[in-house]
Amino acid sequence: MTAHPDFLKYVNKHADKFVQRLADAVQIKRYPGNLSSIRDLILIVLYLDLFSISGDAAYREETIAMGHWLEKQLKGLGVTTTLKDLGQQTLQGQRLDLPPAILGKLGEDPKKRTVLIYGHYDVQPALQSDGWATDPFMLVEKDKKLYGRGSTDDKGPIMGWLNVLEAHQAQRLELPVNLRFCFEGMEESGSEGLDELIEREAAAGGWFNGVDCVCISDNYWLNTRTPALTYGLRGIAYFAINVSGPGQDLHSGLFGRMVHEPMTDLIKLMSILVDHNGQILIPGIESMVAPPDESEIELYTKMDYSIADVAEAVGASIALSDHKETVIMGRMRNPSLSLHGIQGAFSEPGSKTVIPSKVAGKFSIRLVPPQTPEIVNPLVTAYIESEFAKMNSKNKMNVECSHGGKPWVADINHWNFEAARRAVEAVWNKSPDYTREGGSIPVTLTFAETLGVNVLLLPMGRSDDGAHSTNEKLDLSNFIEGTKVLGTYLYEVAQLAREA
Amino acid sequence: MTAHPDFLKYVNKHADKFVQRLADAVQIKRYPGNLSSIRDLILIVLYLDLFSISGDAAYREETIAMGHWLEKQLKGLGVTTTLKDLGQQTLQGQRLDLPPAILGKLGEDPKKRTVLIYGHYDVQPALQSDGWATDPFMLVEKDKKLYGRGSTDDKGPIMGWLNVLEAHQAQRLELPVNLRFCFEGMEESGSEGLDELIEREAAAGGWFNGVDCVCISDNYWLNTRTPALTYGLRGIAYFAINVSGPGQDLHSGLFGRMVHEPMTDLIKLMSILVDHNGQILIPGIESMVAPPDESEIELYTKMDYSIADVAEAVGASIALSDHKETVIMGRMRNPSLSLHGIQGAFSEPGSKTVIPSKVAGKFSIRLVPPQTPEIVNPLVTAYIESEFAKMNSKNKMNVECSHGGKPWVADINHWNFEAARRAVEAVWNKSPDYTREGGSIPVTLTFAETLGVNVLLLPMGRSDDGAHSTNEKLDLSNFIEGTKVLGTYLYEVAQLAREA
Repeated sequence: MTAHPDFLKYVNKHADKFVQRLADAVQIKRYPGNLSSIRDLILIVLYLDLFSISGDAAYREETIAMGHWLEKQLKGLGVTTTLKDLGQQTLQGQRLDLPPAILGKLGEDPKKRTVLIYGHYDVQPALQSDGWATDPFMLVEKDKKLYGRGSTDDKGPIMGWLNVLEAHQAQRLELPVNLRFCFEGMEESGSEGLDELIEREAAAGGWFNGVDCVCISDNYWLNTRTPALTYGLRGIAYFAINVSGPGQDLHSGLFGRMVHEPMTDLIKLMSILVDHNGQILIPGIESMVAPPDESEIELYTKMDYSIADVAEAVGASIALSDHKETVIMGRMRNPSLSLHGIQGAFSEPGSKTVIPSKVAGKFSIRLVPPQTPEIVNPLVTAYIESEFAKMNSKNKMNVECSHGGKPWVADINHWNFEAARRAVEAVWNKSPDYTREGGSIPVTLTFAETLGVNVLLLPMGRSDDGAHSTNEKLDLSNFIEGTKVLGTYLYEVAQLAREA
Repeated sequence: MTAHPDFLKYVNKHADKFVQRLADAVQIKRYPGNLSSIRDLILIVLYLDLFSISGDAAYREETIAMGHWLEKQLKGLGVTTTLKDLGQQTLQGQRLDLPPAILGKLGEDPKKRTVLIYGHYDVQPALQSDGWATDPFMLVEKDKKLYGRGSTDDKGPIMGWLNVLEAHQAQRLELPVNLRFCFEGMEESGSEGLDELIEREAAAGGWFNGVDCVCISDNYWLNTRTPALTYGLRGIAYFAINVSGPGQDLHSGLFGRMVHEPMTDLIKLMSILVDHNGQILIPGIESMVAPPDESEIELYTKMDYSIADVAEAVGASIALSDHKETVIMGRMRNPSLSLHGIQGAFSEPGSKTVIPSKVAGKFSIRLVPPQTPEIVNPLVTAYIESEFAKMNSKNKMNVECSHGGKPWVADINHWNFEAARRAVEAVWNKSPDYTREGGSIPVTLTFAETLGVNVLLLPMGRSDDGAHSTNEKLDLSNFIEGTKVLGTYLYEVAQLAREA
């Protein structure tokens, strides 16, 4: 069963209405919009300075207002909803309510599969003076692109789901699956409170009971040409190597070559973590990752990506290899180690002749299965400690792991991915790239582990959308065809259930 | 000829008067002291904040006032003086007169040797709230120590010379040598204008014509127990290794192991400059320094210094070696390389997952003869460039030398040093340590090169005087016996001329 033809026709016919829905959503700014009080007036003044600060207390009321607007939309489309209070947080010295999570339910047919949809309605800060060509909180269409904060991250995909619901409701079409919704308003600020909510709702009697799979549309194609399905995310383990020696900073003229300098020790330790090809030198880290089999290599070979794409994305021809597969695997299926910087050393312009007394070298490792922070940390610590011991330094050294997160990889042979592949091919007439992302979206892992079901990342936007940047956009075609993909995906989920 | 006995008797008898002279000098603060205008009132208010800023425009008038006071003292002691205008500087947006240099002349006897005395009358900033037990600009005697800003650096030594003059003038004793004076008021702020002045006055008809040797009393014993004569200073060459790649900072999740990271390259380059024993790894740097001969080693062996002294000075037992001579040579006669820090990388507390796009690693090499910045720079640059080439990185790298200064070493067998040795032994009943300092006093080299005569550093204070720190002090014995050393030194210069 492909998508109902009336669904697809409705989407084509009502593109303008859908764009207006996205425009309404984008206009709900994340800053105070009403001059109803002295406080608001003050905030308007402050806002010039504060706007670039993500998660600012001044914008909380508007974020909550967006949640209420979204809940009303869902209700109007026949969804049973509830606003889940996630408690409070302290931000900039203020005790603030967290924006509520919106849970939704549509359909209870035990013969149908139940798909859980996740999205987030909060956005990154934006100020026209940051370099936006237009008001970031007015959706502007130009050259078939929809510009506005949240257009691609993540209001566009959420509106895509509302479009799907509207097309069915307006034409009294039956949805092929049961739907559950989980829309949060804190994704850009650490998803505070969400993990606990998912755990509660996954328990008996919760809103997520009976969920068969999860679909998250909060990421992007690998390029600007080919749709993608994302089936993996790297984890992370973040470290600091602390080296200290003298009781205070020393003058290099007086003490250079008299004492063990903490910087000499630290730089040496940082230099033996990763080689110039990106290979991690800590024993046991690389070797625990299984090499790719032929079918996996084929994914990379077929992937619509080139060394030129890397150069364009980073603004320089500095890819680690001329082989496309090597570079792609470096991001998607291999661990990576990046040296971020040193705290406590001289970091200003100019030339200071200091011997810093206490320095902390920061680095992190992006993890892939079977690596976890718990498995990797002892290897990292043991290696650095043994290398430091060889140096016979009289300074003090310790390794600190400040935070970590596990990697996630899904089975792309699962019907959830198969349904998405069929939907992409039906709508775009093109096979999707199967991608793994280098970074983390922690909620993905929470859904996978808590619900024990397959999780799919189904991107709507393209690689050049500028999600956290200026002039964020969503191509009109990605919004409209993307809406078709979302709806068709539901039909394919139902079809595959029948085939099973 | 040892010192005239009446000179020594006068010093013993007039210690109180000499201390009062130093008290007067210390009280001439380097901040506005008179509430004569609105401007001064404002400065008094600002002064709470500004005081710790060296070379602040707000204190310029008082520094100039100190120069005039000092000139008046010299005149009163029979010295022919002139105030040399050194021009102006722009400081904190203000065009300011530089404090004048005071040149002095006493004696024109062609049968006598002519000794040039250098000192500086400006001081480091000081604020009681920095941790001073007493008002830094009131000289306070406690436990036979004289506490106050400038007591040891460098008002004490200058007052020592005035004491010598007074003892001779009051008793109508003839000085054994001709004297020339050069006292500046910008030493703590880069000696602006002084090099040019020295070059002008060294030329025919200048105030420094006929100078046979130079004596600078602006440094310290190696310890608290044994007088020292200093015959060497290390030079410096300061470098930045600049590595750049991506057009902007990158997210390590997205781009880790896809691209050549500037930090990976930089840390590797910084790690191969110096080993953990302080040995410089850049080819040609160590090898150009001749090993010490037996007589030099004997100086270090005899030196009153221990590994415990290092631990006490730096606040930790981190000396590079357990062999006293090795550690002393590390500071005095070997080059050293210190890694100061990295500009452009993550240097704050916390954990940021950035791949910095452009980083600059700062390090400097302390130079010893025959090393000069001109000789060392090409070796450093060639080595780093060749090591970078081996890395096959696609990032851009260059080595920058931001500033440099030559080392200085004097001949300790010269009669100038011999006179100082005899003076120290006569007054202190102890042989001096012959020391070389790890840091730079650029004016030393200017005198040596411009006048072509032997320059002696004759310290008055001890290692624990806290010259640039809180609670700066000069031991009463160092002031009084030090005054005797300065005077006796002049007699020994004359005696050695006769012996020659």
